[in-house]
Amino acid sequence: MPELRKDPITREWVIIASERARRPGDFLTASVQEEKTNSERCPFCPGNEALTPPEILAFRDPSSQKNGSGWWVRVVSNKFPALAIEGDIKKTGYGMYDYMNGVGAHEVIIESGQHEACLASLSPKQVEDVLWAYRERYLDLKKDKRIKFILFFRNHGRVAGASLPHPHSQLIATPMIPRDISDELDGVRRYDQYRERCVYCDILRQELEEGERVVADNGQFLAFEPYASKYPFETWIIPHRHAASFAYISQPEQTAFAEMLRETLLRIRNCLGNPPYNFSLHIAPCDDDQKGLYHWHLEIFPRLTVAAGFEMGTGIYINVTPPEQAAAHLREVDISTETAKPAAVADSQH
Amino acid sequence: MPELRKDPITREWVIIASERARRPGDFLTASVQEEKTNSERCPFCPGNEALTPPEILAFRDPSSQKNGSGWWVRVVSNKFPALAIEGDIKKTGYGMYDYMNGVGAHEVIIESGQHEACLASLSPKQVEDVLWAYRERYLDLKKDKRIKFILFFRNHGRVAGASLPHPHSQLIATPMIPRDISDELDGVRRYDQYRERCVYCDILRQELEEGERVVADNGQFLAFEPYASKYPFETWIIPHRHAASFAYISQPEQTAFAEMLRETLLRIRNCLGNPPYNFSLHIAPCDDDQKGLYHWHLEIFPRLTVAAGFEMGTGIYINVTPPEQAAAHLREVDISTETAKPAAVADSQH
Repeated sequence: MPELRKDPITREWVIIASERARRPGDFLTASVQEEKTNSERCPFCPGNEALTPPEILAFRDPSSQKNGSGWWVRVVSNKFPALAIEGDIKKTGYGMYDYMNGVGAHEVIIESGQHEACLASLSPKQVEDVLWAYRERYLDLKKDKRIKFILFFRNHGRVAGASLPHPHSQLIATPMIPRDISDELDGVRRYDQYRERCVYCDILRQELEEGERVVADNGQFLAFEPYASKYPFETWIIPHRHAASFAYISQPEQTAFAEMLRETLLRIRNCLGNPPYNFSLHIAPCDDDQKGLYHWHLEIFPRLTVAAGFEMGTGIYINVTPPEQAAAHLREVDISTETAKPAAVADSQH
Repeated sequence: MPELRKDPITREWVIIASERARRPGDFLTASVQEEKTNSERCPFCPGNEALTPPEILAFRDPSSQKNGSGWWVRVVSNKFPALAIEGDIKKTGYGMYDYMNGVGAHEVIIESGQHEACLASLSPKQVEDVLWAYRERYLDLKKDKRIKFILFFRNHGRVAGASLPHPHSQLIATPMIPRDISDELDGVRRYDQYRERCVYCDILRQELEEGERVVADNGQFLAFEPYASKYPFETWIIPHRHAASFAYISQPEQTAFAEMLRETLLRIRNCLGNPPYNFSLHIAPCDDDQKGLYHWHLEIFPRLTVAAGFEMGTGIYINVTPPEQAAAHLREVDISTETAKPAAVADSQH
C-alpha cells in the first residue's frame, strides 16, 4: 500500500510509492527502459490487452469482446498505481509526523490503438472521444466519497516522464485537495473578495483585448501564453464560458475543446520539433464542481529547459522566452502538415 | 533588463530573463552545449579569467594579480544574469497584472581551479573555503537594502541544469521573499504558535532518537532523509544548534559543516554513481537573519526521476524510494574511495 506523508513545515503531501520502490542500482539502468518497448511487446497495443489490468472503460466496436481488440479508447488501472483503490482512509501520527494510507485511484487512458500516433496527430473526433473518456471516468470516480480531487494529465516523451511511448494520458484521484489546486482556489477567492469577479474571466478578457499573448481562439476556447509563464512556451487553453469543472461540458463545447487542444498541440509540435511536454486539466474539487468560483482550464508545459537549484530552492521560475515572443512563434507556425524534428532540452542556467 | 511578473492567481513571481532569450530553434541545439566546453575554453579555468566578468571576490595567493590566476576560490557575476544589479526597484501594473523590474544579483562561486573536480572530491579545507566565500558574499550583498533574500545553490550535471562542468555554485539575490521560503516561514510560525517550539529542532530530535532516516551525524550537523522526502535520496543537512541563518556561523561550526557536506555528497556520489543533483541553502530573509524562528539548513535533491504531469499539476510528488531505505543505502556505502559510475535518470511514471 502506498503511503501519504505530510511535510511538517509546508503541510505538502508526498506519495511514498512502495509498490514502485527503487533501489540505487535501479536508477542506473532505467534509462534504457523505453527503448525496449516496441509495438509487439507494448501493453497498450491492440492484441496485447492481456498485458494490462482489466479494462475499466472502453469505446469499442459493439461486436468486439471486453479486454480484446476492437477498441479505439481504452481505460485500465495503472499496473503500478501511485495510489490504490482498496481500503478506507486511515489518518494517523508517527511521532511529530502525519501519515495517511495511500487510497485513491490511478488509471491510464489509452488514446488510440496506433502505437506511433500522438494526440496532435489523431483525428479531431478521436481527440474528442479521449476527452469523453476523461469525463466518464470523472463522473464514475466522483461517486466514491473517499475521493476529493481528480487530476487528468499527460506526459509526452521520456524527458517529460513518459516510460511508454504509446499515446496515453492518466488520471490520479486523491483523498485530499492537492496543494497547488488549493493555492489556486485561494487565489480565486481572494480576487473574488476584492473585485467580485472571476480572475480567470478577467485574464480571458485582457488577453483577448490585448492579443499579444494569444495563440489561437475559436470563440469558445482561447489558447494563450500566460503573462507570468513559468516555462518557455507554456500554453493554457481556457473556455470563454465560466464553469467550475470540465465535468458538465456540452457536446458542442467538447467538440470545440477537442479542436483547440489538437490545434494547440500541433502548433507546439511543429514550432518546437515535437518537444516533450506535460499537460494537466485544472478543475474544481469533486465537492465543488458545480459551484461558481473556479474556472476550469488546461495547462501545457513544454519541457525545453531544466528546473534547477534556484527554482527548487525558491519556487521562482526563470523563463528564457518571453510569452509575447512564444505566442508570436506559435501563431505563425505552419500547421497544414505535421512535422516532427527531434527537440532537445536546453540548459536554463550556468 | 529582466522582468519580474506576478501570477495573478497564486501570487508567485516569475523571472522573464530577456537577456537569455531563446527562440524556438535555440532549444534544438542546446543539448550539445556542455560537450563543447573543455578546460582550454572553460571560462572558469585558471588562465581564462578574462572570459568572465571582473571578479567580485577571490581567495588567492598574495603575490597573484586580481583577475589573473593564482586563486583557489573565485566569485564573479553571472555573464547572463537572471536578475541585474543596476537600477531601482519599480513596481507597476499592466492591466490586471503586476510587474517589477528584475533587480537583484546573480553570481557564480567558482569552487576550485581544477576543471575535473567536484565538491565531493575537494579537500575538506577547500570545501570550507567555498562556504566562507558564500558567507562573505552574503554579508556584502545584505548591505544592499533592495535585496530581501539570497539563495545559494548548486547544479551538478547537465540533467540538474548545469551548462558548464567546471565545479561552481551560484547565488541569486531577490528583491522579495520567494514563495517557497515564505511558505517555510509560515510553517515555522504556525508550529511555534501551537507548540512554542521550533519545528526543525523537533525534527532533529525525532530523527536522532529514531535513527532510521539518519545518514550521518557529527554532533554538530545531522544529515538525514526527511520523513516526507519529495525525491528519492533527498538529503538535508541541519545544524544541531538553532540559528536563523548560516551568516553568523563560527569557525568550528563551519569546519564541521564543510566536513558533513563533503561526506554527504561523497555518500550520494558513491551510492548512486555520481548522479546529477541540486542543492540549496535555506536561510532566513536578510532582515530576519539574527532573530530566532527560522532554522537554517541545506537541502540536496539528487535528480534520479523526472517530475511529470501529476507533480506539475498538483504539487504532490511521487517518491519511489522510501526515505528509510535511502538512508540505509547511504549509511552503508563505502566512502573510503571515490567511485563514479555514470547515473541515469529513471522514469517515475507511465
